[in-house]
Amino acid sequence: MTIETAIARLRKLLGDRLSTAEAVRAHHGQNEGIYPPTPPDAVAFPESAEEVARLVRICAEEGCPVVPWGVGTSLEGHALAFSGGVTVDMSRMNRVLAVHAEDQDVVVQPGLTREELNTELRATGLFFPIDPGANATLGGMAATRASGTTAVRYGTMKDNVLALQVVLADGRIIRTGSRARKSSAGYDLTRLFVGSEGTLGIITELTLRLHGVPEAVSAAICAFPDIEGAVNAVIATIQSGVPMARIEFVDEVSIRGFNLHAGTDMPECPHLFLEFHGSEGAVAEQAETAGAIMAEHGGGGFRWATRAEERNALWKMRHNAYYAAKALRPGCRVLTTDVCVPISRLAEAVTETRADIEASGLVGPILGHVGDGNFHCALLIDPDRPEELGRAKDLAHRMNRRALRLGGTVTGEHGVGRGKMAYMEEEHGPALSVMAAIKKALDPQGIMNPGKIVAVN
Amino acid sequence: MTIETAIARLRKLLGDRLSTAEAVRAHHGQNEGIYPPTPPDAVAFPESAEEVARLVRICAEEGCPVVPWGVGTSLEGHALAFSGGVTVDMSRMNRVLAVHAEDQDVVVQPGLTREELNTELRATGLFFPIDPGANATLGGMAATRASGTTAVRYGTMKDNVLALQVVLADGRIIRTGSRARKSSAGYDLTRLFVGSEGTLGIITELTLRLHGVPEAVSAAICAFPDIEGAVNAVIATIQSGVPMARIEFVDEVSIRGFNLHAGTDMPECPHLFLEFHGSEGAVAEQAETAGAIMAEHGGGGFRWATRAEERNALWKMRHNAYYAAKALRPGCRVLTTDVCVPISRLAEAVTETRADIEASGLVGPILGHVGDGNFHCALLIDPDRPEELGRAKDLAHRMNRRALRLGGTVTGEHGVGRGKMAYMEEEHGPALSVMAAIKKALDPQGIMNPGKIVAVN
Repeated sequence: MTIETAIARLRKLLGDRLSTAEAVRAHHGQNEGIYPPTPPDAVAFPESAEEVARLVRICAEEGCPVVPWGVGTSLEGHALAFSGGVTVDMSRMNRVLAVHAEDQDVVVQPGLTREELNTELRATGLFFPIDPGANATLGGMAATRASGTTAVRYGTMKDNVLALQVVLADGRIIRTGSRARKSSAGYDLTRLFVGSEGTLGIITELTLRLHGVPEAVSAAICAFPDIEGAVNAVIATIQSGVPMARIEFVDEVSIRGFNLHAGTDMPECPHLFLEFHGSEGAVAEQAETAGAIMAEHGGGGFRWATRAEERNALWKMRHNAYYAAKALRPGCRVLTTDVCVPISRLAEAVTETRADIEASGLVGPILGHVGDGNFHCALLIDPDRPEELGRAKDLAHRMNRRALRLGGTVTGEHGVGRGKMAYMEEEHGPALSVMAAIKKALDPQGIMNPGKIVAVN
Repeated sequence: MTIETAIARLRKLLGDRLSTAEAVRAHHGQNEGIYPPTPPDAVAFPESAEEVARLVRICAEEGCPVVPWGVGTSLEGHALAFSGGVTVDMSRMNRVLAVHAEDQDVVVQPGLTREELNTELRATGLFFPIDPGANATLGGMAATRASGTTAVRYGTMKDNVLALQVVLADGRIIRTGSRARKSSAGYDLTRLFVGSEGTLGIITELTLRLHGVPEAVSAAICAFPDIEGAVNAVIATIQSGVPMARIEFVDEVSIRGFNLHAGTDMPECPHLFLEFHGSEGAVAEQAETAGAIMAEHGGGGFRWATRAEERNALWKMRHNAYYAAKALRPGCRVLTTDVCVPISRLAEAVTETRADIEASGLVGPILGHVGDGNFHCALLIDPDRPEELGRAKDLAHRMNRRALRLGGTVTGEHGVGRGKMAYMEEEHGPALSVMAAIKKALDPQGIMNPGKIVAVN
């Protein structure tokens, strides 16, 4: 009962779709966070839920850790095999299985990426709105309860996964939820597996809610003299009832990165990036109301983007924020962190964080999905100066503590992985023991993505 | 270790807030479903979470069942003490603890009803939209994952509970979630307890999401020559992207009941009841678009209600559907059932159900929240003719099987309780064992509302 015998048995099951090649292992040991390379012992490339089930059953018999892998864009070490074992790369399970246009839902395999899905949907008049910065897989997005710029209007993965197929830790295959829009039929297992980061089972199929492509879309950027003005404009806009599709805060340091990376020439001050969805009339009315609120809070220098190409350029710039941040300090590594607070505490949270970063001497753009109270900070560090990593970790630590003090959470959308585990006790208190009890009940051996979310003895 | 010793100990804890009086027990043995009177052994009236915790700890030590009670309006026997024990009446925990207008949330105790909450919120410009027919408690609504006429726009309790305080089966008090609008910090315990019907713990506090009272509201009713026309108009309206606030189907038998009960004179044919929320301009535009879609599908005889009193009369009539149904057959009892299907299968589900009821010879109005694919049927039976109950159960059984065959669920919003337990295996397959594993992990003795949702040996 060892990882070695598991690998030998898996090779029989999968043939050359079980790899122990150095390059393959190295690729699956990389991450976009700050973890050193952590290659697994082997990488499996299953092609069906049944194959995943057989794989997990073998690993259960051999006590071998099982770590699911989408495209490896997670930021908190979720997909790293810290305890060794087998990484399960879902890239061969990347098909759209059924589009139900009348019901506005789609059934997909977990290895499909969000951009691939939207490409497939082009002719249907429907789209899947959730957009983390990276072109992540839909399985990975469900596993981390991802969201992005449109959550303020369309919700997060929690709100847009209708049903799942999951392989449990003992190799059984279950289905949760249905294509009905709502149900009161028992415990909400769909929502339990969404955000469980592979620690309770492996998602092998997802039924996702789709939304109609809006008749009209309009986007704008707006400059503010200070953080408070921008954040207060956000609060007032949300309270006004304008159904914002996107309302993104980007601080002056982020803008400098955008200018460097995308070749733009925006003034280096806080900005809001806005988008409105609806009928022609509704979008015009929303834009007028929001524009007036922005102006009241000191916003100015509006630049509108109504044509699709302009809008795409704007949001591409926003989605490339990670790379834009890197442009501020070539050769740097990035410690990205992510918190979410009640919106009434947002100005305080962002302003204190900005001041804390300035005091640290590090470069760290702040930006976020502020309509939800969610913001990120990308702390740039020189890999050759280890003390900078220490300073960045201290900053992130204070940011997490600040979020908790203000009634928020240490992660709005990136997830726990290994990076936020240290805060789970403080955030959840005795509820963490309930998470541990569920983990023990569903994965008594602790083979499913061990060492993530909650430690179980 | 008996129920008797539990009651003796609880009397010491609660004094005269622990009652074994016949009238009190009888009141808590009633239900709006078809269950015979099932009085508990005693009824407790706690006043704080700490008191609930002490109560549950005593019951755990004595192996005494604990059954939470809101106002007893559930339809599937959720609040009945089928195994005896102590019913925990939450009516003394009915305060609004905090209104956070800027964050659009409110913290309440579980015994507060939805109408009481909205009365308290009158001056804030905010409201809580979820509206099951009855004026249920918010704790009960969370426990059953309730929804109602506005779910098509504002979601269900799943979408509007941000955080909970829960007393576990061992008497520990936990908090789940936070006032942040989203989080990826571990397993979604809030969504696990929402819909768990008191089987995993007792909800002692809720943080609820509020919504801004829309600037403009307009409502209308529209008559259709047949069910298909009405349902197809619903599908087309949803697909058009009109953000309906309410879109309710009411069949010809229901209309007859409304006319009898409310003294109206609507034509006895299928109707849709509609409501639009938004700015003045948006509501006018939505109403125009929806009106055109209705007309295309044979809808006519529009009656608009723009003044608040007219609208209130309209929705009061809709919310009184249970009593209107009873008016169709004075002295009857009502077997109410509730299913939800993908909207593409809705016309088929409703039409088949209508025909099945006609063939049975029973009277049974059909109506529902069709924007979600959710509909109900109220089967009227003569309590003195037991064979009618059998026929009604057969009809409900076929309705549940039909919903599953069409890819739906046996309960969209009423919950499982005892009434839908028989369908859990068929609906969930092996996932039911995951529910059982969670139940066992969190309530190993099986004292929390035993015999509901999932049987555990």
